[in-house]
Amino acid sequence: MLYHVFMDVTLPRDLPADETARILAREKAYSQDLQRSGKWRHIWRIAGQYANYSVFDVQDHDELHRILSGLPLFDFMDIRVTPLLRHPSAIREDDR
Amino acid sequence: MLYHVFMDVTLPRDLPADETARILAREKAYSQDLQRSGKWRHIWRIAGQYANYSVFDVQDHDELHRILSGLPLFDFMDIRVTPLLRHPSAIREDDR
Amino acid sequence: MLYHVFMDVTLPRDLPADETARILAREKAYSQDLQRSGKWRHIWRIAGQYANYSVFDVQDHDELHRILSGLPLFDFMDIRVTPLLRHPSAIREDDR
Amino acid sequence: MLYHVFMDVTLPRDLPADETARILAREKAYSQDLQRSGKWRHIWRIAGQYANYSVFDVQDHDELHRILSGLPLFDFMDIRVTPLLRHPSAIREDDR
Amino acid sequence: MLYHVFMDVTLPRDLPADETARILAREKAYSQDLQRSGKWRHIWRIAGQYANYSVFDVQDHDELHRILSGLPLFDFMDIRVTPLLRHPSAIREDDR
Amino acid sequence: MLYHVFMDVTLPRDLPADETARILAREKAYSQDLQRSGKWRHIWRIAGQYANYSVFDVQDHDELHRILSGLPLFDFMDIRVTPLLRHPSAIREDDR
Amino acid sequence: MLYHVFMDVTLPRDLPADETARILAREKAYSQDLQRSGKWRHIWRIAGQYANYSVFDVQDHDELHRILSGLPLFDFMDIRVTPLLRHPSAIREDDR
Amino acid sequence: MLYHVFMDVTLPRDLPADETARILAREKAYSQDLQRSGKWRHIWRIAGQYANYSVFDVQDHDELHRILSGLPLFDFMDIRVTPLLRHPSAIREDDR
Amino acid sequence: MLYHVFMDVTLPRDLPADETARILAREKAYSQDLQRSGKWRHIWRIAGQYANYSVFDVQDHDELHRILSGLPLFDFMDIRVTPLLRHPSAIREDDR
Amino acid sequence: MLYHVFMDVTLPRDLPADETARILAREKAYSQDLQRSGKWRHIWRIAGQYANYSVFDVQDHDELHRILSGLPLFDFMDIRVTPLLRHPSAIREDDR
Repeated sequence: MLYHVFMDVTLPRDLPADETARILAREKAYSQDLQRSGKWRHIWRIAGQYANYSVFDVQDHDELHRILSGLPLFDFMDIRVTPLLRHPSAIREDDR
Repeated sequence: MLYHVFMDVTLPRDLPADETARILAREKAYSQDLQRSGKWRHIWRIAGQYANYSVFDVQDHDELHRILSGLPLFDFMDIRVTPLLRHPSAIREDDR
Repeated sequence: MLYHVFMDVTLPRDLPADETARILAREKAYSQDLQRSGKWRHIWRIAGQYANYSVFDVQDHDELHRILSGLPLFDFMDIRVTPLLRHPSAIREDDR
Repeated sequence: MLYHVFMDVTLPRDLPADETARILAREKAYSQDLQRSGKWRHIWRIAGQYANYSVFDVQDHDELHRILSGLPLFDFMDIRVTPLLRHPSAIREDDR
Repeated sequence: MLYHVFMDVTLPRDLPADETARILAREKAYSQDLQRSGKWRHIWRIAGQYANYSVFDVQDHDELHRILSGLPLFDFMDIRVTPLLRHPSAIREDDR
Repeated sequence: MLYHVFMDVTLPRDLPADETARILAREKAYSQDLQRSGKWRHIWRIAGQYANYSVFDVQDHDELHRILSGLPLFDFMDIRVTPLLRHPSAIREDDR
Repeated sequence: MLYHVFMDVTLPRDLPADETARILAREKAYSQDLQRSGKWRHIWRIAGQYANYSVFDVQDHDELHRILSGLPLFDFMDIRVTPLLRHPSAIREDDR
Repeated sequence: MLYHVFMDVTLPRDLPADETARILAREKAYSQDLQRSGKWRHIWRIAGQYANYSVFDVQDHDELHRILSGLPLFDFMDIRVTPLLRHPSAIREDDR
Repeated sequence: MLYHVFMDVTLPRDLPADETARILAREKAYSQDLQRSGKWRHIWRIAGQYANYSVFDVQDHDELHRILSGLPLFDFMDIRVTPLLRHPSAIREDDR
Repeated sequence: MLYHVFMDVTLPRDLPADETARILAREKAYSQDLQRSGKWRHIWRIAGQYANYSVFDVQDHDELHRILSGLPLFDFMDIRVTPLLRHPSAIREDDR
């Protein structure tokens, strides 16, 4: 099932530089693992913002929440989830 | 270039049924042509709403606007455009 | 899977009384069928408003959207969908 | 009487880890006691958020407020209360 | 139990003058009956607006909703309900 | 003259416990004096929130502002003032 | 006493031209009478909008409401009232 | 030219008392100089808030911005500027 | 002086096609005259919307308002005006 | 391609004065380089605010994002991007 996810990141100014670096490195690895597995279908940077629009393709709400709440940046994010489905005008049965 | 587009449709109640049908048929054909050409990369229905999230891959703002303002449903839509770019954590050079 | 749904109804003033009555009767039957089948788990009126909070327990986004867009009142509703999951503090494995 | 409650949690970053753990343990026990007593009828996690939708079944506003303001996490929550009642289309006399 | 209620009235322009007069007369009688019974404790006009803040003292959510949805002006109102309780600093046990 | 006042309290987390206690005790005394004098006609807690709806009956804007800005909690409050007047449907000449 | 008032006008398109002209003429006369009497202290057009900021100097809320609800354009206005008082830094005792 | 200005002040809690006193004294002197010169035409306190509505009569945007950004409290203010002009119903050619 | 203006157009559906055409033709001529005179410095279409961002360079608020309220589309526009000035980092004395 | 960019700056109070000065000097140089290159077409201060409206003329979203996220003040800004295109009523083929 598909979910549209908006993630808006706000890093606190007093986060030590090395801790920030560690978190960002873990975030990147975490995201790329999920992209490789096909669960994190798309991730796009929003121009001019420290934010992204993503599309997830997971089993159910539970799996989505496990993934999102496991994000190394989860505590620094505002997250909005929107359930998506096939559009009646889509030319593909399975647009992911 | 990629654009994230939110389209929210409100059909006026006094639109005659056959005119509605005609517009929707034209909208579907219009959308499917653009999907086949690769310009309308994704279109997803938002659960519970007469609305969609779409991703366009076009030359520039001009082409995007020509496409959107040419939508048979354009007069009945609230549209929001967000420019997207490759996310630094994306595993693909070219995630469309 | 569980979905929290907010439905806010606005009936247009010029809807003929008998058409309104017909739609409301169909809406009630439609809703009660789904309640009996267990898919429409809860429906509560919000005090002072022509609106309700509901909880649906369906297969996936598709089934939810089919149900919601099939509501006889769908054209007169503002609908907001929120995916729900088991809360880690819930005492029941399966709180529906 | 039924109340729909939205609780949105924001833990301050400088809360010491052990204090956080203590508060969360107390919150869980507090919530589970009330669930067992039947006063906290439902609690659902909202996907992707540190927030929940709950339904309370209590005597009156007073009891609700005593319960909510007694939450160990109360100081870290944004809370919205909505009074609910039986929906005229509900198939159950008593949908809790 | 006490409820704070905000009522904002918008009369459609095409409501015939005599129908408007009839509705307003019924609204006034309806309101005054409830004021006399003690259920509609307070009603204040908001300066410069066709709106009021009211306080109701009723048995439960059900009775409140029956009263509000029975208002002759109900279809032309935007209504917001807030449950109230005794304030810990109130000098009266029973501030209605 | 009557004023409807919404007060929403946010105590900063780093306020020392004894200072908080002192402020709250002064706030309570201050409020009760004004209630006894008849100037602070009503104060109701909003269910589930550290907030209240109040009604003041004072000479003029000046007196209202002197009272509100003198609140020991003033620095920690978001305050909204709405001027009220007799409602044409009120059964009492003088509903305070 | 002083009140800051924001008035935003929306004339319905189907108001006949002569009725519009009549209402506007009456509105102007009504406003100018009140300006001459000193009750409507200031009226300024907001650049680019069919709206104004005004300052009224009247006896009390009642008089303000009588004036505002008597505006020939009242039914076509969105009105917001804010009570004003002397600013502690004002050089005039009586800045109207 | 006339400008309507809304200024909303939020003093940070950790500003030392004497620094606060110094800033407020300078703010008052600064404001009174401009009032005397006729550039700061009106300043009114908004009831119940640490905020004011003001009217400035200055040469142009530049002068307005120089004045506003020179306010000793500028860093602690949220400021909204609205250009004003003579209202067609004003009885004075020059309502300042 | 420079003004940033946002114009959002909503044409009513029941405007006859030829009247629409006439208004749009007049709007275009009106705008182009002002562009030629240098008063309407910039006009840009916002991608995906029937809206524009413009920059005006006029004598004062009066002239701006005369121009805006004279727009053939004025009755069908939502307009927001923001006064602009030279930015301290601008490389040009006179960036219009 | 043209982009309309709104930048709203909030400098944290505890930023040391010399660090602030260094950042602002770098910001100015950075902005002026881009203005000279023609990529940062316009920058205007918004009257009364620590904010600006700018227009960028760059290759694509990527270049815009590189420029914006490279701003020395980026971490202290709220940024909104709007894609612009030639307006059909523009007298210039190329209004930058």
